[in-house]
Amino acid sequence: MTAFAELMAFQRETEALGQIAGRLGWDQETMMPRGAAPQRGEEMSAMEAVLHARRSDPRIAEWLEVAEATDAVEQAYLREIRRSYERTCKVPADLAKTLARVTSEAQGRWAQARADEDVATFVPVLKEVVALKREEGQALSDADGDVYDAMVQDYEKGTTAAEIAQLFDALRPGLVDLRGRVLEKPQAKGVRGHFDAEKQLQLTEKLAQSFGYQMDHGRIDKAVHPFCSGGGLDVRITTRTSDDDPFNCIYSTIHETGHACYEQNIDKAYLLTPLGSGVSMGVHESQSRIYENQLGRSRAYTGWLFEQMRARFGDFGIDTPEAFYAAVNAVHKGYIRTEADELQYNLHVMLRFDLERALMQSDLEVEDLEAAWNDRFEADFGYAVDKPSNGVLQDVHWSVGLFGYFPTYSLGNVYAGCLYQALRRDVPMLEQDLANGKTSGATSWLKNNLQQHGGLRMPVDTIAHATGEEPNHLPLMTYLEQKFSELYDL
Amino acid sequence: MTAFAELMAFQRETEALGQIAGRLGWDQETMMPRGAAPQRGEEMSAMEAVLHARRSDPRIAEWLEVAEATDAVEQAYLREIRRSYERTCKVPADLAKTLARVTSEAQGRWAQARADEDVATFVPVLKEVVALKREEGQALSDADGDVYDAMVQDYEKGTTAAEIAQLFDALRPGLVDLRGRVLEKPQAKGVRGHFDAEKQLQLTEKLAQSFGYQMDHGRIDKAVHPFCSGGGLDVRITTRTSDDDPFNCIYSTIHETGHACYEQNIDKAYLLTPLGSGVSMGVHESQSRIYENQLGRSRAYTGWLFEQMRARFGDFGIDTPEAFYAAVNAVHKGYIRTEADELQYNLHVMLRFDLERALMQSDLEVEDLEAAWNDRFEADFGYAVDKPSNGVLQDVHWSVGLFGYFPTYSLGNVYAGCLYQALRRDVPMLEQDLANGKTSGATSWLKNNLQQHGGLRMPVDTIAHATGEEPNHLPLMTYLEQKFSELYDL
Repeated sequence: MTAFAELMAFQRETEALGQIAGRLGWDQETMMPRGAAPQRGEEMSAMEAVLHARRSDPRIAEWLEVAEATDAVEQAYLREIRRSYERTCKVPADLAKTLARVTSEAQGRWAQARADEDVATFVPVLKEVVALKREEGQALSDADGDVYDAMVQDYEKGTTAAEIAQLFDALRPGLVDLRGRVLEKPQAKGVRGHFDAEKQLQLTEKLAQSFGYQMDHGRIDKAVHPFCSGGGLDVRITTRTSDDDPFNCIYSTIHETGHACYEQNIDKAYLLTPLGSGVSMGVHESQSRIYENQLGRSRAYTGWLFEQMRARFGDFGIDTPEAFYAAVNAVHKGYIRTEADELQYNLHVMLRFDLERALMQSDLEVEDLEAAWNDRFEADFGYAVDKPSNGVLQDVHWSVGLFGYFPTYSLGNVYAGCLYQALRRDVPMLEQDLANGKTSGATSWLKNNLQQHGGLRMPVDTIAHATGEEPNHLPLMTYLEQKFSELYDL
Repeated sequence: MTAFAELMAFQRETEALGQIAGRLGWDQETMMPRGAAPQRGEEMSAMEAVLHARRSDPRIAEWLEVAEATDAVEQAYLREIRRSYERTCKVPADLAKTLARVTSEAQGRWAQARADEDVATFVPVLKEVVALKREEGQALSDADGDVYDAMVQDYEKGTTAAEIAQLFDALRPGLVDLRGRVLEKPQAKGVRGHFDAEKQLQLTEKLAQSFGYQMDHGRIDKAVHPFCSGGGLDVRITTRTSDDDPFNCIYSTIHETGHACYEQNIDKAYLLTPLGSGVSMGVHESQSRIYENQLGRSRAYTGWLFEQMRARFGDFGIDTPEAFYAAVNAVHKGYIRTEADELQYNLHVMLRFDLERALMQSDLEVEDLEAAWNDRFEADFGYAVDKPSNGVLQDVHWSVGLFGYFPTYSLGNVYAGCLYQALRRDVPMLEQDLANGKTSGATSWLKNNLQQHGGLRMPVDTIAHATGEEPNHLPLMTYLEQKFSELYDL
């Protein structure tokens, strides 16, 4: 056996064990009996210890030294194995353990502080988290590197914070302006009535399959938060229902279907290899977003969906496809990122990006975080935050140490804009198909040009390969400007 | 940290990983999408490799050499860790791998041969399995040890094949005789009608809880075969329904509830230790059997169950509690072990025990197995096997290398007999309680006298501790003789 083959065999077992850890997470959110939590904690940490030992196994360094790649795919395998190995070895084991312990405590404190609307009780533990993350960032970045940049690599490898800032700075003025003009107009009419949960679930299963989700390699279950989990031949999604808001179930399912189809459509030659899953959080989000927004909330598709809804729920207060399209794309004032519409969502993200970057670069301290949040929110949204649970305490991310993750949400939207522009160029029948509930033209294009390649190329190159040009903010801005100008008669 | 503490910490992680492997098995039978099977195979084998490496880790030998136990519980921990370690090290890794490969192939061949009613196509691969198992048995037994005895240790440690044979030889004539007398009598009337699957599941969940199954540490799902899986704080069971036979669902659920309550009721001080699960297959089966038969099929309990059934299913062709008791305990002719009643079940098991023991001791060859099966069946049951799927091809066990497992089914019944005798002695209100659907007197006795102790004592000592005397065949024989004499008016 060559060193390359030995390394790949070792890696394959690690990938298989990683899949198991992922499935345990799925089980915890969907099936696990409540009282099993303490035992599950021990199981997960035993599994993490096994994975950490494998990912930092010194034999990897030995194999990497002599392994020879004979083509671009093998080069990519080695590139990813090297990246993961070096990343794992850079963070001292003690620091990793302390971080796990402190973030676990901080998550509880955050939930309590949010319930109590009491930022002050959360500040001390968040200070600890921030200090540890800065330390981790220093360990990860080379001596003179940027701490926050090093963190972004965990979620969007090859992209720098400066590049992201440039992109966001170009996007933000246009978004603030468009949002202001839309909100001066009368609001769209919403749905009303009671939407049977079972019927919602049946409809969303149909929708997921209409987007190409393969049920023989997946399943849909209910969970508190919708998510997508797993990879390769076993990619599961979850959803939730709300009796008076069917769009919650429908669009979160289509969103997760985008994630799931990406995983399901990766070339099976990459199964259980370092290229066998979505290349980055940003590119992953581009898939979930294009399924959800550019396709799922399009005039064409919502026209078809309107008929599906009428057939299942009868009269729900909306009489025409046009009014339904407006309801699906309604723009409201609000404080909460996860409830934000397509137009305002990125403003929520950019706020977080700037604040967390400043925190990591020690340009902002935790004590000043709430004020900084509130100032920025009022500047972008035009009204003040009314309570911490609608402001700085709304997201779990910082409490669990996720710094560098937020910007990938908006990168995903920017990438989705680029992909949609190329898709319209290459698939002339797109709107006609969507108007009949047919997504295969779009999903085949995405599979062929992006999804099947898995982690072969770096994130930006993945988008550029699919669209033929470097990703930039213009296609998204143009798409939003056109869509909402027309919808709101600007 | 002392050597003892280090060893226990290492063992605890291994136990946690073992729980994960078990939950993967559960997922495979209940939740896994069909198309995920090939990937799951790799995941399972990666997990098995991790577990094998830990169980044969040379540090265990070093720890064991110097670890000191300070009480009986710690002695038992060390006893079990030593047993497992020595067992794992005795079997050469190559042999274990070959066995895994050949049994995996043999299982497929067995399923095909059974479908085709063609023993001849199964013989060659079964010969391979038997040869490998004999080799494994030689590796496990010390040079002059008994190959089959060594195998029994995997399922019923501390018990020899000779002891089992003595027990079975004492039981068999009485069973053959009682069975003959019962089958001369008119058969009990069966149920008729259509039994709604959803209602069956609701009823069985109620029954499981009535036997003390804790739903906050477990769950009930549908699967092709009923089973119990997991341990500690997460013990799950499965069941199945048949539209025209509600007893299938009811009694397989009560059976699995017995297994599950044993696991759930083990002292939490033993969680994730070598004493934290049921001590042996035989003792486990004693719990499932006493819940299912001595309690669940008793006149008292079936009287209560009859009312539960009537309330849910209306008229199902049986008018009195007495007729219902007879239907639940009907004795029919049949070929299949898994469908056999309480009276005939052990005859099926003893047949297998004698044949597999002869196979392992090279007193019988695979070519002669079918004839030996058919001769023995006719001798015990009085009629000839009509086709291989009703005879030598009916069970999966031998194809997957399970030799030494079968006798634990009947050991369980013998132990259940002993426990029931003691239970009646110690819980005078037993029948009155059961007649009201109350099992807490019985289940508390089982928990206090047996279940809570987990793997503290060896299997025979576990039963002796609970009952106050060495286990023997007489209580079971007396119980069956009384029950069926009265039922069939012998």
